[in-house]
Amino acid sequence: MIQSIDRAIRVLTALQGTRRMSLSELAERLDLAPSTAHGIVRSLVEHGMVVQERGSSRYQLGPAVLRLGNVYLDTLELRSRAIPWAEDLARRTGLAVRTGVLLIDDVVIIHHEPRPDGSRQMPEVGIVIPVHASALGKAMLAFLPEDEKRVLTSGDLRSMTGETTTSPETLRDQLDQIRATGVAVEKDEAVIGESSLASPVFDSYGEAVGAIGVVVPSGGDLKGHDVSDLVRETARAVSRELGAAAWPPRRPGQ
Amino acid sequence: MIQSIDRAIRVLTALQGTRRMSLSELAERLDLAPSTAHGIVRSLVEHGMVVQERGSSRYQLGPAVLRLGNVYLDTLELRSRAIPWAEDLARRTGLAVRTGVLLIDDVVIIHHEPRPDGSRQMPEVGIVIPVHASALGKAMLAFLPEDEKRVLTSGDLRSMTGETTTSPETLRDQLDQIRATGVAVEKDEAVIGESSLASPVFDSYGEAVGAIGVVVPSGGDLKGHDVSDLVRETARAVSRELGAAAWPPRRPGQ
Repeated sequence: MIQSIDRAIRVLTALQGTRRMSLSELAERLDLAPSTAHGIVRSLVEHGMVVQERGSSRYQLGPAVLRLGNVYLDTLELRSRAIPWAEDLARRTGLAVRTGVLLIDDVVIIHHEPRPDGSRQMPEVGIVIPVHASALGKAMLAFLPEDEKRVLTSGDLRSMTGETTTSPETLRDQLDQIRATGVAVEKDEAVIGESSLASPVFDSYGEAVGAIGVVVPSGGDLKGHDVSDLVRETARAVSRELGAAAWPPRRPGQ
Repeated sequence: MIQSIDRAIRVLTALQGTRRMSLSELAERLDLAPSTAHGIVRSLVEHGMVVQERGSSRYQLGPAVLRLGNVYLDTLELRSRAIPWAEDLARRTGLAVRTGVLLIDDVVIIHHEPRPDGSRQMPEVGIVIPVHASALGKAMLAFLPEDEKRVLTSGDLRSMTGETTTSPETLRDQLDQIRATGVAVEKDEAVIGESSLASPVFDSYGEAVGAIGVVVPSGGDLKGHDVSDLVRETARAVSRELGAAAWPPRRPGQ
């Protein structure tokens, strides 16, 4: 780990959380000397990763990060493969469809197919949901190697709503269930009034590289079993396109 | 400028251009020792800014950049102010509406309101267009201080189509015109078959912080004067919301 790169990314992460910060706030947050923080910020500003807010001493993220994010989306084979299937799933269920990948202890939404009812809906690409509070996250977590289930041992199962699973034992039971059915469920765990179902997507190495699922208004007419089947079939279809030999993959010890 | 941060951003930029690169390709591109490139990449991987492609020795951008890009969009006051006006402009003209900001010698699209004809259109947020080939870019360039018009002196007016303005003299004439009318026009300069009109958006400091405009199918029915007026009025309205006292701002020497 190169220290100054690590610090630069921590500056970006701090601005991601707090949006606008002065040099002294950044230095304090990162426990750096102000001159060190200044050197880091200046390097980031030079490349448009950070910009200084006009008429203020505060800094915020810059347009270069948006361009990087857009190229990331374009590069992702999972996304290009998932899009037609997501459209199909949305049409058949009348529900919004999300595709996500893991980013440390969160899920990042890489595609969002809005509910096909013609209403205006907030775009969700780029938003993050804690892995343990999301059906997408649980679907991937269930099929990770044991030593990559960091969130289970880090003790960081924070509550998002009163409904969030915060006990590692409960989460482990859910993961067993998901491995048995291929479908993860979450009810009001991330956002009150919104539930979701998701299934993992595997690549040709049998790794859970993402997950796809539907968003269901809580208490709405789920048509339960039908939707589960459709979600599972969608994940299986996308996995097949990514070269997965079996869904779910057969692995020793699972 | 901190050297290792600069190098890390150059790694990200190289991956932005070439999408997938091995360590040795990165080392060669950046003129670094392989061990140096390895240390940089490892630091970026640690934070999810870069990921290694499964079953390959190549690296690509990671999900952390998507999250940063999304927060950037959320932070941008220009964007939140522009959205309702962009929707209105799209409705009144029947055209797609783009809002953009400068990133060095490019325009980055920060909002894209699709043509309101119900057709499926590629999202454009995060894409870049060379400043001299885009109406958005010319609109901002016309109102920049002379010493920030880098592209005019860098000799980097590359041709995108046969129609792109590549002569600094021609571009200077266009900028005079834009300052007189408040509207920049581009015909087939970035993409053949697509033209655009845009006007600059100013903040309370009188700085051109962005631009907003419409995309017109070339040879389509432009209803010329009407659209120009609507684009100008839209830019003026967004500028007013950002606290601009006058549109365009009055400045000494312009």
